[in-house]
Amino acid sequence: MKAFEFINVKYDRGLTVILDKGLPLRYFEDYLNLCGDYIDYIKFGWGTVATIDRDIIKEKIRLSKEFNIKAYPGGTLFEYCYINNKFEDYLNECKDLGFETLEISDGSINLSLEERKDIIEKVREEFEVLTEVGKKDPSKDRVLSVDERIRIIKEDLNAGAKYVIIEGRESGKNIGLYDKNGNVKEDELNLIVKNVDIKNLIFEAPLKSQQVSFIKKFGSSVNLGNIPYEDVISLETLRRGLRGDTFNILNQNQ
Amino acid sequence: MKAFEFINVKYDRGLTVILDKGLPLRYFEDYLNLCGDYIDYIKFGWGTVATIDRDIIKEKIRLSKEFNIKAYPGGTLFEYCYINNKFEDYLNECKDLGFETLEISDGSINLSLEERKDIIEKVREEFEVLTEVGKKDPSKDRVLSVDERIRIIKEDLNAGAKYVIIEGRESGKNIGLYDKNGNVKEDELNLIVKNVDIKNLIFEAPLKSQQVSFIKKFGSSVNLGNIPYEDVISLETLRRGLRGDTFNILNQNQ
Amino acid sequence: MKAFEFINVKYDRGLTVILDKGLPLRYFEDYLNLCGDYIDYIKFGWGTVATIDRDIIKEKIRLSKEFNIKAYPGGTLFEYCYINNKFEDYLNECKDLGFETLEISDGSINLSLEERKDIIEKVREEFEVLTEVGKKDPSKDRVLSVDERIRIIKEDLNAGAKYVIIEGRESGKNIGLYDKNGNVKEDELNLIVKNVDIKNLIFEAPLKSQQVSFIKKFGSSVNLGNIPYEDVISLETLRRGLRGDTFNILNQNQ
Repeated sequence: MKAFEFINVKYDRGLTVILDKGLPLRYFEDYLNLCGDYIDYIKFGWGTVATIDRDIIKEKIRLSKEFNIKAYPGGTLFEYCYINNKFEDYLNECKDLGFETLEISDGSINLSLEERKDIIEKVREEFEVLTEVGKKDPSKDRVLSVDERIRIIKEDLNAGAKYVIIEGRESGKNIGLYDKNGNVKEDELNLIVKNVDIKNLIFEAPLKSQQVSFIKKFGSSVNLGNIPYEDVISLETLRRGLRGDTFNILNQNQ
Repeated sequence: MKAFEFINVKYDRGLTVILDKGLPLRYFEDYLNLCGDYIDYIKFGWGTVATIDRDIIKEKIRLSKEFNIKAYPGGTLFEYCYINNKFEDYLNECKDLGFETLEISDGSINLSLEERKDIIEKVREEFEVLTEVGKKDPSKDRVLSVDERIRIIKEDLNAGAKYVIIEGRESGKNIGLYDKNGNVKEDELNLIVKNVDIKNLIFEAPLKSQQVSFIKKFGSSVNLGNIPYEDVISLETLRRGLRGDTFNILNQNQ
Repeated sequence: MKAFEFINVKYDRGLTVILDKGLPLRYFEDYLNLCGDYIDYIKFGWGTVATIDRDIIKEKIRLSKEFNIKAYPGGTLFEYCYINNKFEDYLNECKDLGFETLEISDGSINLSLEERKDIIEKVREEFEVLTEVGKKDPSKDRVLSVDERIRIIKEDLNAGAKYVIIEGRESGKNIGLYDKNGNVKEDELNLIVKNVDIKNLIFEAPLKSQQVSFIKKFGSSVNLGNIPYEDVISLETLRRGLRGDTFNILNQNQ
């Protein structure tokens, strides 16, 4: 039972995807006991899993499942294996470790729409597929137009992706929908949600100001990703109007 | 026994209030074993406690007491319950959980001075009362004059508040005594301490530069709040002149 | 066995020195089980050890040794004891606690080259010696010319220092080789590495952008210090080309 249970807020919570860039095992368990109820996906960022003991990764995946959380490795690891002709090895190792969700992306490599579609269709035979749209290098990301992004999102969903993630990186600045100060480019965001059902999108929003901005615009049901692990409880309070930043927006009796 | 005990610094330590925005239970215990000696209050930030299991909150309060630390929920939770006509429920749940200190504030709601006084007087029948002065929204906080702040502080102390906290939020920027870069507005600060005994004030100072600034100005005995949990040891070294930033101010033989 | 072992990256890993500003004991153990393989030195920052229980420090040093990691106290503690005429006490306590490496610096005090040499020669009788070049106060650090830095580095190495650390502080901004935005001053860096074998240097690089910058310039074998403890795994992926920032530099088949 939660504390202050008499506060009975009705709200529709969107997905919360956290970024784990290497939490120790016992801490991870302790952490899930605190806030595992509010996490839907845990991304083991970029290629981090390839530097960690198999036993630790397996146990973290197992613990995640106890909380109905889906863990998956960052897309960069897929990209690394794919261009090094280790795609089959990649899929087998993911299965062995216990992953049931994978992320497909081309943040550091180049994939044609055709190739991307083939990969998604192959992966979805055995895994739930998330995809990500955007480039890791800001100078390359900048030349990807909104129209192209929308086209990739639509193709990915058609090919069977469960959700498409909009790149924000760990920093949330000068990338994807964010300008160099981390402010949301509203025009581009509006174009995307006009063309794609927002229920199929996960917006990477590592900064609190970004989380607030999305909740103000779309409500508590917006799907947010790349949440720093320490900010899960904070995000939950933002979704419920229990923090100053959203207090007066979400509490209508004010 | 502490390491390097022969370093026998004489100093008068002010209060240290940390911000806990959701530390896992076993980590919390481990953490207090390391630095619990240097913490006076632990604030469970804004409405975070309302998202966490009762058992975990109760145990964290119990552990805090073992270290003579007073835990209390952030003022936003009080505000939330108060405007939703759950003030009695709030007080009862706080008592049940083991809280002995509460924070009264109007960072997101509006309270007249009269109403504020009545609340403080009611709460202090069963709890130690801290109050906070300032608004969460920078645009509203900006129009609160220093004179008004001083008046509220004085009224709160008269009504029985043990300490009054000067708002700094988690960010320490563009709020209360801080400009948009987090620098202290010296004129406003000077006016406040000229009118109120500094022993009754706790300055929220989340950034190291702010902690250094207060220690340089007022010495190690200044009361500081909203200290990130990971910076308690750092703050302790700043208070003792064991870090570069205060080394030459506090070591007079230099 | 690490996960995704079939990724068999050949690379020459430089030293990684992390900054521990007060990790709790059980967390510390948990943390080393995750990423202890990638850490060479752990610096207990500035004077932090003097605020912590002897038993905890001893146990952290013992655990570090199990992972072949050398722990040492920050140079500021040496400076503090030295100018307070407690140098012998300092050395004895370090030995008792189990330290086998020490850092000699004059970030907050002034040492002549002669005095510095004498100290290094004395300390190296019983400890491995690291030294640090730079001042903690940006206004003092700014007037230390590159030529003077190079001269100190050479003298320290001649006197028996194992490595010389180039100051970057916790912030990585407006100090040593970094401008106020944390960008590397390339001219100064080039001058240093032209005059000193880079194998003898450890560059403090707390920000990811700085780590990327050094790896791009010198390769994975560059020695990096003041790495935030949470970024060890990230740094390891940067060294291997498993993160977007170095992916295309280190993966030549791209």
